[in-house]
Amino acid sequence: MMMELRQKGEKARRAAALLAKLTTVQKNRALELISSQLMQEKGFILKENEKDLAAGKENGMNDSLLDRLRLTEARLQDMADALIQLTELNDPVGEILTEWERPNGLLISQVRVPLGVIGMIYEARPNVTVDASSLCLKTGNAVMLRGSSTAIHSNKAIVEVIHHALEKSDLPVDAVQLIEDTSRETASHMFKLNEYLDVLIPRGGAKLIKTVVENSTVPVLETGAGNCHVFIDKSADKKMAIEIAINAKTQRPSVCNACETIIAHKDWPALSELVSALLEKGVIIHGDEGITGEQIIPATEEDWATEYLGMEVALKLVDGVDEAITHINRYGTKHSEAIVSNNLENVERFLNEVDAAAVYHNASTRFTDGFEFGFGAEIGISTQKLHARGPMGLTALTSTKYLIKGNGQIK
Amino acid sequence: MMMELRQKGEKARRAAALLAKLTTVQKNRALELISSQLMQEKGFILKENEKDLAAGKENGMNDSLLDRLRLTEARLQDMADALIQLTELNDPVGEILTEWERPNGLLISQVRVPLGVIGMIYEARPNVTVDASSLCLKTGNAVMLRGSSTAIHSNKAIVEVIHHALEKSDLPVDAVQLIEDTSRETASHMFKLNEYLDVLIPRGGAKLIKTVVENSTVPVLETGAGNCHVFIDKSADKKMAIEIAINAKTQRPSVCNACETIIAHKDWPALSELVSALLEKGVIIHGDEGITGEQIIPATEEDWATEYLGMEVALKLVDGVDEAITHINRYGTKHSEAIVSNNLENVERFLNEVDAAAVYHNASTRFTDGFEFGFGAEIGISTQKLHARGPMGLTALTSTKYLIKGNGQIK
Repeated sequence: MMMELRQKGEKARRAAALLAKLTTVQKNRALELISSQLMQEKGFILKENEKDLAAGKENGMNDSLLDRLRLTEARLQDMADALIQLTELNDPVGEILTEWERPNGLLISQVRVPLGVIGMIYEARPNVTVDASSLCLKTGNAVMLRGSSTAIHSNKAIVEVIHHALEKSDLPVDAVQLIEDTSRETASHMFKLNEYLDVLIPRGGAKLIKTVVENSTVPVLETGAGNCHVFIDKSADKKMAIEIAINAKTQRPSVCNACETIIAHKDWPALSELVSALLEKGVIIHGDEGITGEQIIPATEEDWATEYLGMEVALKLVDGVDEAITHINRYGTKHSEAIVSNNLENVERFLNEVDAAAVYHNASTRFTDGFEFGFGAEIGISTQKLHARGPMGLTALTSTKYLIKGNGQIK
Repeated sequence: MMMELRQKGEKARRAAALLAKLTTVQKNRALELISSQLMQEKGFILKENEKDLAAGKENGMNDSLLDRLRLTEARLQDMADALIQLTELNDPVGEILTEWERPNGLLISQVRVPLGVIGMIYEARPNVTVDASSLCLKTGNAVMLRGSSTAIHSNKAIVEVIHHALEKSDLPVDAVQLIEDTSRETASHMFKLNEYLDVLIPRGGAKLIKTVVENSTVPVLETGAGNCHVFIDKSADKKMAIEIAINAKTQRPSVCNACETIIAHKDWPALSELVSALLEKGVIIHGDEGITGEQIIPATEEDWATEYLGMEVALKLVDGVDEAITHINRYGTKHSEAIVSNNLENVERFLNEVDAAAVYHNASTRFTDGFEFGFGAEIGISTQKLHARGPMGLTALTSTKYLIKGNGQIK
């Protein structure tokens, strides 16, 4: 298996050198070709996807996973459309970030360049194969894809179709490499493939991401886990606070920017209305001491650290903004945190002192998303502090380089 | 030993939360206090440094290492002066990088924040203890220092003095933590201390850096190795090319931005003058096929990949800019690369296609340095592509955070 990784790593490395030289027009043309090729060969892709679905059913895969695995003509059309939308976004490569002259006459500029070769490790969604490849190509990067064994037929078909499109383009076919050996050992080797990979991006559940972060020596762009909070201050507008809490918890509870613990000031007057609204929506409440009721489950220490990703919430009571900040910085995952308050001093303290990628005042945590931020694309939401933090657009797939022009300067 | 790491990690984490809230004035005041405390307690520091020097001599440490280990009144004064200079630099924390409004009325801003807790692993230079602590404090970060066992008395004394100064300041004393257990095991545990460290910065030789990169799961800011090239094109000005090559090779051969291989176009007319100039300076030449002479050692494959860090150079001949770029991208360490040429087309190709942190036209590679770039401080020179690339100033010790202000927006 190391053989496959090394050979494909070598090919990707060579392709990356060629990709870095291409113009935006050449890259966009390739994205258009992939878009049309996907629809031209949709029959082939759907047929191969059927094999994965059949195997999944045979192995007792649950309905939700089967749904993630399933491709349909409509879903392929969405992918094809997304590729066209991507051509309309600015190409960050080549952008001059800053430029200055030194007293000795050296002219220094800092320009954006591709990262090189990006490794993607992801779970059973075949759409990530298209998504990751296209984002990497747009930014002039080669990509090594390592998807799940449960989607191997779909992934192979999609990459074959992408290769057909690349053959018609100015881009090297080797720019997109699929690792066909989906054993755990291959993934482990990929974690240490520093020679060929500039960065590794895991996409999937918390367990996958943890495994990659804990074992990888290739730099990782960590995305994911969100134990997000909404803090309702004493002065919070009653209606606004309930709307934001309900939206952050229930609008799409399975995603990372959904709220997992609501923290309410103990003197906020509308606590019982909030509890009723949550129960009415079918949310199971794990309540702090002081929150009682027939339908309330007493919260344990574990609840404060739990990402339910479902219609459950922990409800914490605090004495004030200080206790809320301390609780969030202790149990949060530095993703998205919100305060609902009309006390501007408390708002400022919350925005400054909560350590998270995105901190909200009077808005739902659900807006932490590349599209909602207006980036036009999303690589993921970074919960780490190096390189990129929060929703990542195309620039997160780039590095920089200094160009220095002189006329004979020596030191 | 894990006990010490965990306890100090916990303290550093708590200190980091306090540091992030401080004003520039408070941080600068602490740097001034450290500066004056160093001079007040210079007798104590020099006495403790003597113990390390005595142990070093007893253990047969060579003169160059003893010199790196040695503190003197003048060296302490330099450190004290550097602390004052640091107070004059802009504080990057709090800077608003960008701000925009979404169609739904959300106001999004991206602000600079400290990274949190920075781990430093370094070799026998006690000045790094002051340098790393002060750069971290200026940027609102706590720091965990793990120096060499050979400098332990000096490091303990310096950190004690820093603590005396911090006691008089608004900064938490726990902001600077020295790991006193200098065993290899402790370093290994530090590589995996993701719970407490936001980033790990190794400072020292290539071997140390390699060990940290290959074993660390904490994100690493990789600094260091420089197999740098000067390419002299066919059209290069004779005098300029020789001056730049000699400067890049000999002005300070022990540093990472010094030149290790000179690549000359085979038809450049002044090759023999260059060889004479190098020999005259006492440089040992490992010459490519076609470069002959009594004093020339034939170059081997290994020479192209060697960072001599001394008065030795490899001399390669090429057919043109393409071959030069291919050679550099194959053997270089992506640090600093230069072209001397009057052919603008070749210059453009070299600047665009060489994959390195700093690429020069008609100037010496020796300028890759935070001070030469005008940053006023230097954390190191990053040879990785994530987060920061090239000379790193204070901003490399920061992250960002999105602040989003709404008036009840829900999704």
